[in-house]
Amino acid sequence: MATILDVARRAGVAKSTVSRVLNGQGYTSDKTREAVFKAIEELNYRPNVLARTLARQSTDTIGLILPMGTSASKYLASFIDEVNKMAARVGKAIIMKQVADQPGGALNSINELIDHRCEAVLYYNPSGYHNYQETIEQLNEKIETFPVPVVVINSYLPDHADHCVWYDHVKFAAAPVDYLAAHGHQRIAFISLPLSQRTTQLRMQGYKDALNRAGLEFDDSLFVESVKCADESGIVDVSKSGYNACKQLLERGQEFTALCCVNDLLAIGALKALTEAGIAVPEQVSLFGFDDDPVLNYFSPSISSVILPSKQIINHAIELTIAHLGKKELPVYDEQGTQSQLVIRNSVKALN
Amino acid sequence: MATILDVARRAGVAKSTVSRVLNGQGYTSDKTREAVFKAIEELNYRPNVLARTLARQSTDTIGLILPMGTSASKYLASFIDEVNKMAARVGKAIIMKQVADQPGGALNSINELIDHRCEAVLYYNPSGYHNYQETIEQLNEKIETFPVPVVVINSYLPDHADHCVWYDHVKFAAAPVDYLAAHGHQRIAFISLPLSQRTTQLRMQGYKDALNRAGLEFDDSLFVESVKCADESGIVDVSKSGYNACKQLLERGQEFTALCCVNDLLAIGALKALTEAGIAVPEQVSLFGFDDDPVLNYFSPSISSVILPSKQIINHAIELTIAHLGKKELPVYDEQGTQSQLVIRNSVKALN
Repeated sequence: MATILDVARRAGVAKSTVSRVLNGQGYTSDKTREAVFKAIEELNYRPNVLARTLARQSTDTIGLILPMGTSASKYLASFIDEVNKMAARVGKAIIMKQVADQPGGALNSINELIDHRCEAVLYYNPSGYHNYQETIEQLNEKIETFPVPVVVINSYLPDHADHCVWYDHVKFAAAPVDYLAAHGHQRIAFISLPLSQRTTQLRMQGYKDALNRAGLEFDDSLFVESVKCADESGIVDVSKSGYNACKQLLERGQEFTALCCVNDLLAIGALKALTEAGIAVPEQVSLFGFDDDPVLNYFSPSISSVILPSKQIINHAIELTIAHLGKKELPVYDEQGTQSQLVIRNSVKALN
Repeated sequence: MATILDVARRAGVAKSTVSRVLNGQGYTSDKTREAVFKAIEELNYRPNVLARTLARQSTDTIGLILPMGTSASKYLASFIDEVNKMAARVGKAIIMKQVADQPGGALNSINELIDHRCEAVLYYNPSGYHNYQETIEQLNEKIETFPVPVVVINSYLPDHADHCVWYDHVKFAAAPVDYLAAHGHQRIAFISLPLSQRTTQLRMQGYKDALNRAGLEFDDSLFVESVKCADESGIVDVSKSGYNACKQLLERGQEFTALCCVNDLLAIGALKALTEAGIAVPEQVSLFGFDDDPVLNYFSPSISSVILPSKQIINHAIELTIAHLGKKELPVYDEQGTQSQLVIRNSVKALN
């Protein structure tokens, strides 16, 4: 690795001259500067930024903590993109860690990134159910004791709303059920992901709330908790989970006129199971996915879905982080202003 | 932010005692250690890791450079996952940067991460066509002058095969065309992504090579370069590009019995265009995607595709990085050993 002395030798100048050129201080002739820059390039010399940043107690980095297995989620991948864009905008690099959902994991991972002298940390709280309450209590207690701003995404901190951004999963999941009930459906089935995920629990609550509002009873025989499917090389096939769950539902022989799935890939699998069973969509069963993957347009029939306000929520988290960093006035999160949006395609039919 | 003095005060001990506890050196009683750790936890005290790492000239981080817009690619998202797993395994954090494909971008971004004192850098070369030659020449010249190991992914460096891992895009793209020709197809159409992408150019070359091997002429009227489609909120719909490209192909009125698309989402859109035009798949036209997204199973007919050896290539890049880091013997990249695999589903029919 080249040192400042190597540069000075190659350029035929004194070490102090190289320093003057690098710091832009004192007089140096154009010819000298040119020789120094040429030597720097030829030797691929890198000034010791770490020593410089130590003096400033900063590394020009922002920490990002995500759940394991980002590739399974288009949403998390797009979140990474947005955080990177923000980092580029404010001239920072991202230090990223993926962490398993385990007791104490939140504080440990945040502290670890602070040890790397990140100037701020974005912590994406995974949707695990079992650690949730404990994690939130710990974050709620400690969030202002960290030496740098920490912003929590996907969870509400009761005493620190200005440090978090959250989704109203219950409200968003109720929307398609409300729509179906308003259009005359009374037997509405529901396929969820594993209930060990907190988001799934909340979406299930939204389903129950909407049934309740419409004066319909929750019927356990119309609900299926799907099981994770992966092939031998570990590639997860969520649609297969939806296919299996829908077959299980059909085997029960219960009558239903509509089926809501907690995500699009489950709905894609369910459509196949319905079609194989000779059940016409939407004539006999109306079908809703969730997340609005563009691929839904290419099925026959095209599948209806729900658009989450992800972009709005991600942007708010980023604005909040930038405001904390700049010690500016913090933007207020308008929970009421975040609305999901139904996309009605050919898989849904009104009964009234 | 708590200092070591705050900890000492809260624990009721001398500052030097806290140091002894932290460094595990000298005698301290169980009771003292307990009091110090309690104070550390209560005050959320973080020892100055940056100062410590400066002494070691290392930050326990590995750099990862990716193209902009990771969310568009399942493959890149799973690459991020694998690199994170590797980092966790060797006790490192990841510093990530997404960079635009522009002249000099490769060296600049690598140097920038080295400035952050990464111990190694993985550089994923984007598939852009225009900068490719220049970038490869620069990397090939400089790769051993960097002060830390740099591994290039998705490009071959002529003089430094032990610093790179590459895909034989030409060979992989030829496989479905070889298969179709062997099964009696003579009019094989091809839908590509924009040819400004180098990968697309190479896949197109694979298509031409396979035609050539089968004694078939390349016919420009059977080739369509698709155009990127995005909605007003910026969400890219690759299937729509495939749909539009296939409609354009059909409007030309040329006869063809098979259609290969350079990725699965294009093939999904093409299936819709064919179905709308009343063309039966596979009875009238056989269809191939590329990448083998599990969702292909859920279309009617299910769509055939090509599995790339991505996992093998990603793992090799990671093993190479770890070997460079540990100054161990470098694993040799067996290009011949990387094979794609055809997945024949219901969208393909033999004509002989």
